[in-house]
Formats: sequence, structure tokens, C-alpha cells
Amino acid sequence: MSEPDSQQRIAVVLPDGSELEVDADATVEDCAYEIGPGLGSDTVAGKLDGELVAKEAAVYDGAELEIVTDGSEEYLRVMRHSASHCLAQAVERHYDDVDLAIGPPTDEGFYYDFDNLDVDEEDLADLEREIEEIIAEDYEIEREELSVDEARDRLADEPYKLELLEELADEGQQVTFYKQGEWEDLCAGPHVDSTGEIGVVKLLEIAGAYWRGDEENTMQTRIYGTAFEDESDLEEFVERKEEAEKRDHRRIGNEMDLFSIQDVTGPGLPLYHPAGKTVLKELEDFVESLNQEAGYDYVETPHVFKTDLWHRSGHYENYADDMFIFDVGDDEFGLKPMNCPGHAAIFQDHSWSYRDLPIRYAENGKVYRKEQRGELSGLSRVWAFTIDDGHLFIRPDQIEREVEGIMDMITDVLETFDLEYEMALATRPEKSVGSDEIWDRAEEQLESVLEKRNLDYELEEGDGAFYGPKIDFAFEDAIGRSWDGPTVQLDFNMPQRFDLDYVGEDNEEHEPVMIHRALYGSYERFFMMLIEHYEGNFPLWLAPEQVRVLPISDGNLGYAHRVANEFDGFRVEVDDRDSTLERKIRAAHDDRVPYQIIVGDNEEEDGNISVRDRFEDQEYDVEIEAFRDHLEAEREEKRTEPDFLQ
Amino acid sequence: MSEPDSQQRIAVVLPDGSELEVDADATVEDCAYEIGPGLGSDTVAGKLDGELVAKEAAVYDGAELEIVTDGSEEYLRVMRHSASHCLAQAVERHYDDVDLAIGPPTDEGFYYDFDNLDVDEEDLADLEREIEEIIAEDYEIEREELSVDEARDRLADEPYKLELLEELADEGQQVTFYKQGEWEDLCAGPHVDSTGEIGVVKLLEIAGAYWRGDEENTMQTRIYGTAFEDESDLEEFVERKEEAEKRDHRRIGNEMDLFSIQDVTGPGLPLYHPAGKTVLKELEDFVESLNQEAGYDYVETPHVFKTDLWHRSGHYENYADDMFIFDVGDDEFGLKPMNCPGHAAIFQDHSWSYRDLPIRYAENGKVYRKEQRGELSGLSRVWAFTIDDGHLFIRPDQIEREVEGIMDMITDVLETFDLEYEMALATRPEKSVGSDEIWDRAEEQLESVLEKRNLDYELEEGDGAFYGPKIDFAFEDAIGRSWDGPTVQLDFNMPQRFDLDYVGEDNEEHEPVMIHRALYGSYERFFMMLIEHYEGNFPLWLAPEQVRVLPISDGNLGYAHRVANEFDGFRVEVDDRDSTLERKIRAAHDDRVPYQIIVGDNEEEDGNISVRDRFEDQEYDVEIEAFRDHLEAEREEKRTEPDFLQ
Repeated sequence: MSEPDSQQRIAVVLPDGSELEVDADATVEDCAYEIGPGLGSDTVAGKLDGELVAKEAAVYDGAELEIVTDGSEEYLRVMRHSASHCLAQAVERHYDDVDLAIGPPTDEGFYYDFDNLDVDEEDLADLEREIEEIIAEDYEIEREELSVDEARDRLADEPYKLELLEELADEGQQVTFYKQGEWEDLCAGPHVDSTGEIGVVKLLEIAGAYWRGDEENTMQTRIYGTAFEDESDLEEFVERKEEAEKRDHRRIGNEMDLFSIQDVTGPGLPLYHPAGKTVLKELEDFVESLNQEAGYDYVETPHVFKTDLWHRSGHYENYADDMFIFDVGDDEFGLKPMNCPGHAAIFQDHSWSYRDLPIRYAENGKVYRKEQRGELSGLSRVWAFTIDDGHLFIRPDQIEREVEGIMDMITDVLETFDLEYEMALATRPEKSVGSDEIWDRAEEQLESVLEKRNLDYELEEGDGAFYGPKIDFAFEDAIGRSWDGPTVQLDFNMPQRFDLDYVGEDNEEHEPVMIHRALYGSYERFFMMLIEHYEGNFPLWLAPEQVRVLPISDGNLGYAHRVANEFDGFRVEVDDRDSTLERKIRAAHDDRVPYQIIVGDNEEEDGNISVRDRFEDQEYDVEIEAFRDHLEAEREEKRTEPDFLQ
Repeated sequence: MSEPDSQQRIAVVLPDGSELEVDADATVEDCAYEIGPGLGSDTVAGKLDGELVAKEAAVYDGAELEIVTDGSEEYLRVMRHSASHCLAQAVERHYDDVDLAIGPPTDEGFYYDFDNLDVDEEDLADLEREIEEIIAEDYEIEREELSVDEARDRLADEPYKLELLEELADEGQQVTFYKQGEWEDLCAGPHVDSTGEIGVVKLLEIAGAYWRGDEENTMQTRIYGTAFEDESDLEEFVERKEEAEKRDHRRIGNEMDLFSIQDVTGPGLPLYHPAGKTVLKELEDFVESLNQEAGYDYVETPHVFKTDLWHRSGHYENYADDMFIFDVGDDEFGLKPMNCPGHAAIFQDHSWSYRDLPIRYAENGKVYRKEQRGELSGLSRVWAFTIDDGHLFIRPDQIEREVEGIMDMITDVLETFDLEYEMALATRPEKSVGSDEIWDRAEEQLESVLEKRNLDYELEEGDGAFYGPKIDFAFEDAIGRSWDGPTVQLDFNMPQRFDLDYVGEDNEEHEPVMIHRALYGSYERFFMMLIEHYEGNFPLWLAPEQVRVLPISDGNLGYAHRVANEFDGFRVEVDDRDSTLERKIRAAHDDRVPYQIIVGDNEEEDGNISVRDRFEDQEYDVEIEAFRDHLEAEREEKRTEPDFLQ
């Protein structure tokens, strides 16, 4: 039905799903006023189809519109963007001939890049004070639309801005400037109404950054900062940041000599040093024990496959951009970004009866994914990571029992590492493969598992993958951060693509259901999380060095070695350096060794030891055997903290 | 000093190092007659600087010359080449319009490729008879030199020969033909004097082969054969071949479902199935136990590195053609063909004192080497293989002790698998890096280790790598074949390239010596050798399935499962198929399970078992516990054969 004046009227969709009809030339702000005058005057910006825009931006027919007001997360983003302008204004007040580059908000604050700026950390306080003044001066932040020609004139002295202008705007188009006091910037916005609206600003650090992220370009000076609505939010942020820095796995990894990522060996490609590999091996062994108990068989697949495999699995169409692909002769090969197609190929190489199922394959498979180099960071974003992968090939009637088995394993992991978690069940999306029957049956079985166990979970209807429903876990670490955790993913698609089958009791061919499952997910991310979760103070069973024997004097060195031999099977070292006991204790503490054994003349005479733990508690006259028995139990039970003295 | 007639005389070098002066236009045969008339008349062919040539070939000044006579290995090669001509002659007598391709001798016989030939295995006997006739007819094999033009005329009906002619010969050059009876061929030779000289010929099989090995070309018919001087040599060859085929790891690997190499996943890229991975894991665990005892620390490095690393290690200059290399953005990356540079990078990331050394890194590192696709075969020639790699960074004074430690580990491996071996010490070659002092000291220490142990070794003077001396082992398998085995390789070059150092007792920086060592070498090749060595009958500790319980009737199934539970910790299965005991016994035997436990009503009544081993011996009334104790000991001691009943 066409309305008589439909040409001049359009409709936007509000968050509650309702439609709002407005004039064809309405702005975000107009829409807000249309909803209510209070909302109109509170409007800071808008979100059009998910993109943050200025309140002056025109809406369009059919757009999903959200109004951004004070107090929301989006508002914080807008305010931080304005704070970055204040930083640039302050810089230009303090330094001459600086060239402006870009200054966007980020998830945690903002930055601004400058060229020809010579500044160091000590100068940040001065700049902060200048920003405070700019805020106190409460300049109106004015938006202005200019033609590209006018903008070009105005940016004559700003080579980087000019470069952006030439690239981003077509002739004849209008571009926007934002002006506050004596200062202005080519900028798409949005911004708060005046500098006085910005709460508190803190400058964080100075770093180098290549213009446009390209190593071939000039290295510029980037100043990072953040802004909050009030002081208490900032304080909380700073505290969290300090806590996170104290736990930073890159620093701890270096201190404990766990791993390295080197220029010469390449980005996102971690090398595990002996201490790090020791922890990894314990993690692998733990999963191996769970796998063995649950009837998984290990397989091993190469890291390179002919891309025929990825064409068959469908990864080539959907994932090739994130893969490392290369030619050998006339054929194309790729590093595996996932282990599942290789496992499907192993299953397919054999013929199976319904009695053989479930078949459960496990592999600690190192995969390679081409993440953006700028995104790579420590062990949390890498090119190479190992998945504790498991793939099950089962009959549809086995879903519930197998998922229960996996939930048992996940529970073991969560309890062992004393991790909090959240869980979600995601069900059939609109577009999907597989019959209604198999989806219904699968979802019922998954729900039944979760309900039988009284597990608290979020139901995310329609959020499953197109190929099957899934259960996803998120770990919560010691400081409340959330990390991707275990996953259980049903798959009705890959068995079809690989033409997998088994002979049923009816002597007919049937298609198995595939389950993808990982307990840690990626060893790299899990290892990183553990380092930060424990602040490097690994539980005894994981600690690279479990016990260090400290002889009080050189005379006790022989006894120290004899004591160390009594702890055969543990990772035990003797500190034989020529140093004071105090310094040895400090070193063992810095090295995060859970237990120290101190031996002097008294201990040697009695054939005993003194035991000190990482909490700096100490007990004298301990019998060697008693301590060893304790250690064995503490390791065996994978207790999270050294508790001999607790 | 120049001789007056030196222009018409040249000198060739004989195998004993002496020089023989001959006319400048002398042939191989002339040289032989010059040495002695007996040798002259016995001459079949010659070797000039290692290359087999016709006796009519001209020698040149300074060439190393070897005369090939009856009875030598080279003679066999010449005779087999002549046999391939007889095959082609026989084929052309039996089939019309066949096009000849090539027909060279090989290490084990010869083949001839034909196009437009429709032949199958049943026809080989007829062809063999025809060859026997050609031999009996004793045609003289005549060598003829022709101009390229003349050759072109003569080959008008042979398109493949023409193609070779156009490509291989320049205009104006002479080419050779070999003629026997009515048949002739463009051929460089050499050949025996007459078909009657050929002993016995056997045709072996028919295969498809692409013209010039290129998949884009026509698929031709290749007939393989072999020839020997007498019947008994041929019989021995056939026997050895049958023995090797019975043991072929590709067939056994398939029968036991150990691994697969699939078209869709790519060439030379094995996938290990559960049974194969079980054996591999036992092999890994064994090396791990040796490594742990010997103080090695495991590390883990990625499979991809920036090529900067290979430039630093020197592999880029010398090995890039065999590497898989690809670009990511502006940088070049490569799959690692060796683990050593990664380990050097780990060592380099830390600072070390003389007290820290030796540092011993271990890694089961999968490496990738781009072998020719036509050369790939099963697990013996692959693109992807895992090395049980160890790299030590030591002080020069530690060479002897560390090499001794490695020899202990190698001895453990040789004894565990009951393998014969040969060993060689290779010393400083002409071109080398490192001072005289370090080479002398290193060689002395290596010799001292070998002599202290009374080890029988070959001294290969000057055969070391340019970067250090080495000890290489070759395994000998059950049927006398030789395989690359453990290696201990000193390296004075890589520490220099990576600028590795440690602080000595003198507080100065010193360069460590690096040792490369592997016990198995490549898991793939070792696994292959074990499969063939044991004919798939793995020792208990390696067997994918160690025990199978066979219930005599369905009524004993419950008891069978209870018995199986008593063997927890072993890889035990129950044969619950509806089948006769005889067939179950046969199946367990075919599946190469070391032990079968048979349980019927008698056993169930007595709470006992019957035990049967792979030698088909059987004992009744065995106590479960007694058998389990035996199994534990047999596994623990890694005995090579099931000996409960022996």
C-alpha cells in the first residue's frame, strides 16, 4: 500500500522493532525529537545500522536507528573521541609545527598520532593539565560542512590530513570539520556538544606508530589516553589496568623464560622455551588422561594439505583469506587452519559399521591462521596455535550420551583450574543444513544434557552455526575478564561434504553426525590465560620448577644435592650460586617456585629440611619423606595452591 | 715439463691412482688394451669420471677411467640395458605399430616404455620366451654412428625417439644407434657385445608411466624386468623381492590401518590413524624417557618461520630449492626443513654462563622438505616427517662426555629394537669452518669415545661436513637391508652464524659447540623400517592391539568383558562378533595381535583363561594374574617377541 505522501516520508526501525515515520530529510536528532523532546535534547549521536554517526547525520529509509545518549557505552566512545581532539589541541598549544595525523577512540580510550612532535613521558602531565583547561574553558564543539575545495584550502598546512582528504572524499562531496575554540580538525565525528561535557582525561603512554600502519611509511608519535565520565570510573580503570599489567603474560613469560616471539623467527609464531614447554606438556598430559578415560584415540595429521581438501570441506570458499596458501608445481597447498577436515579424511579412509561408532579422534593439532599482523599480540593473538581438538563420528541416537561425556571432561577442566564460567546453547539459525528431524532431535538431546545437570545456561535461539547447534563456554579469570573456553559443536554438514557413512543395523548406509569439541580451545590462549590468572604462580603440577633447594652455606651443598635426589621425579633444582640465603630466597620467590627447601647445618645434622612456600611461610624440622608424600598428593590432585604449610 | 709429442698424447687416471698415457684419440677399449690384451678383450664398457660409457667412447685428458668387465656391478647394468633392448625387440615382433619411448637399466633391473601397446600380465610369459629366443639367436650388438639427419630419416616412424633426438642432439653432431638382428634403437649405450651374452631375463610387471614423467603427457605402458648372469642370482633376487613385498610397509600399513596417504590430502603427507599413532606415541615416549634420563629439556617451535631465520642459518643459500617458501605481504616465510635454527634462536634469546652448559633441547619436530613428487613413496620418502631432534649447546671441553651420553642413548635404541648396525666416523674435509685446534680437539674426543667402547667403526677421513665431524649409524633390518640410523653431528658453524655465546669462568664471551643428534632419525623412516623389520608383528609394547579376548560362544561374552577389564592399562579388545572360534583366531592372527585370550565354559567355570600367541602356541588353565604379571614384564622390558609360551 503506497501512502499519498510517501515520497517525502521514510521509516526507520527502532531498537524495539517498531517503525518510526519521519521526513525524508530527517537527521538522527530529528528522529529523537520525534520520539520525545527529552530524548531529542539528550541526543549525543546515533547509530545507523550499527555505525556510530553524528546526530546531524541524515537517516535513510529502512535504517535501524539507535539514539546515543549520555551514560551509554557508545556515549563514552563519543566523549573519548572528543577527548582525543582536546589532546591534539593541547599539543598544538604546546608545540610548534606539529603535523596532525589521526585520533580515533578505541575500546579502552583513544589515541592521537602526530608527526614532528618531540615529546616524552614527563611531558604528559603538562599536556594533561592543558586538556583540563580546555575542558574547563568549555568550548562549544561546532560541526561544519565544507566542500572538498574549501577543506583543501583550510588543510594547506596539514599534509597528512590532506592525504586523507584526497583519498576519502570525492570532488563535489561535503566533508565535516569539528571546531572547538581556536582549534579545528577534519573529522567525521560524532562528538559531544562542548569540551565541558568531557569528564576526566588521563594520558597513558607514548608509542611509535607507522602512518596508516604501513612499515614503509613515516614513524609518527602516538599518544594514548583515556577518558571517563567521573574520577571513580577512571580510578577503577587504572587499577584494573595495573592489575592486568602485573599479570601481563608477555612480561611474566619473559621473566619466567616461558616463550619468545622474535623478529628473526617471525610474528605470531611463538617458540616455547623449556619452562614453557614443561607447562604445555603438563596441560597436554592432562587432556590426554581425560581423552584416554573417555575412549578417544589419538591421530596425527600434517600441517600442510592439498587445497582439494579445503574445497571439499568448504573452508576454501569461506576461509581462504585467512589461510596461508602456496603453489607447488601445478597444485595448490595450504597450511591447515583447522584439524577437522583431516580427521574427516581419516574416518573416510575406512568402512564402518554402526557397532564401531562412536569413533573419537583426538589431536593436539597446530593450526595456522593469517591474522592481521597489527592484531598479533603475545600468545593471545597468534598465527600458530595448537588446538586440543577432538572430533567424534557418531550415530544420531548417540548425541546425548556423547555430549554428556564431553560435559564431564569440561567439568574436570573447570574444576581443576578453579575457573568460573558462563555457558550458552545456540540453536538452529534461519539458514541451515540438515533436516528438521535431525535438528530437533539434536537440540532436544543437548537441552536434556544441560537440564539433567542443572546447569545454568543462556539460550541463544537462532545463534547456532548453519551446520549445527552448539554449546559454548567462556572462562572468567581471577580478575573477572572473560575468555573463550570449551566448545561442543554438532555438525551435520561436514559428514555430507565428505560423504561419510556407516552401515546401520538395517544394512543401509547412514550418515554419521560429527561433533567438534575442544576443552582448552587453543593451548596458546589457555596458557596465556593461566599465566595471567595465576600471575605466573602456577599450581605445583604445572610449575616449571617445583622445588628449589637452598643450601645456607657452601658447606651444605653436598647435603642439598642429596636432598634434591630424594625428590626424583619432581622438577627440582639446587641453588648452588655463591650468594646469601636471603638473596636465594628472594630469587626463588621471583622465579615463582612454589616450594623452597632450606638446608643448613641443623638440617644436615638432623637429616631434616626446612620448607618455605611462595606465601613466605616457613616450617623447620620437616621430615623429607613427609614433605615428599605431601608433594606427591598435591601434584596428583592438581591442587591450585601450595598447601603444605597452609 | 712439456714432452715433445705431448700434443698427441693424453693421460687418464686409473683406479689405483696411477696415470696411463695414451694417444689423444684413444677409446676406452684402447686404454684397456694398453693395460693388457686380456683386459682389452674382456672390456664391455668404461666409466669416465664416474659415468658409464661405451667401450668405443673417446677418453679425455685427466679423466678418471675405470674399465668395466664381466662380473662387476657395472657390467650387470650394461647387460640389463641390453636386456631392455631384447624386450623392445620381442615386443615389436609380437605387436604391430608400437611406438618406442625409453628403456634404461635401473638399480634392480630395467624397463622399457611403449605407446600404443595393449598388453597384460598374462602376455609377459610369451614375451619372456621371445627374449629367450633372441638371446639364443646370439645377435651381434652393433654400434653405429650417424649424423642427426640420417638418424631423423631412420626414426621417421618413431615420434618419441624423434622428440628425444631433436632435443638432445645438435645439428652436425653424431648420434649412436645399437642394432641387433632386425631391430635397432637410438641409444647412447653401452651394451654387451651380443645378445647371447645376456644371462637370464625375467619380466616383472606392467605399469603406467607418463612420457617423460610429466602428468600432462600421454600415459604409456611400462614393462619392468630384470636380468642376471645366471639362474641362481635371479632366484635369489626373486626370493628377496618376495620377502620385501611380504613386508612392504604400505601394504601392511593399510592392512593394519596404521596410516594413509590420500589424493585429496596430498602427496608425501601421511595421516596417522589411531593404530599408527599408537605405535608412534610409544616410540615418542621411549625417546622421551631416554631424553629425560639424559637431562634434555623439551622445547616447541612452529613449522613456519620468517626466511630471515634461514638466511641467518645459511639454509636459504643452500637449501631453499627443497623448501616450501611463500610470501605474506612483503615478507617471505618458509616451512622448516630442519629444527636446528629454531633451537639456536631459543638458545640465543637467553644469556648463559659456563655453569649453565650443557644445554640440551629436544623436540619431536615435524619438518617439511620438497622432494620430487615422483620420488615420494609410502613413509620412506615423504614431504612431511618428524625428527626426534636433539640439539646440545656445550663447551668445547664437554664434547667427549656429551657424545658418550648420546652413545648410551643410541645403544639403548639399538638393543631395544634388536637391530644390527654399521657406524662411521667422518673427519675434517678440505673446506671447513672452525680452527685447527677445535677440529683436532673434537676429533680426538670422538675417537676416544669410540675406542673406549671398543666400537667397530669405519674411519671416513675428510668426509665430515664442512661445519664439523660426525658419527653416522646405519641400521640393518631383518632381511639385511640398510637404513639411515642415528647421527651425532658436531657443528662449529651455526653458533657462529647465530652469534651464540656464554660467559666463561674467565668472564669473557665464548662460543659454544653445537651438537645435532637424532636417535631414530625420522619417525617416518624408522616406523617404516620397523613395520618391515617385524613384518607388522610389533613387540607387545608397540602393538596397536596387545591382547584380544575371544569368547567361544555368545554365552561367554560377559566373562570375556570381565576378563578384558582385568587387563586395564593394556590395549585390549573383545571380539564380540557372531562368528566361530576358528574364524576369530584367524582374524586375530591376521590383525597381528600378539596374544589371544580364549574363554569358554571351562575357563568361565574355573575363573581361568586360555592363552594363545602369534606363533599359534596355546596354553590352557592359565591364571589371569600370572598372565597379567607376565604381560607387564614383557611390556616393561620391551621384549621383541611374545614369550609367555616360548
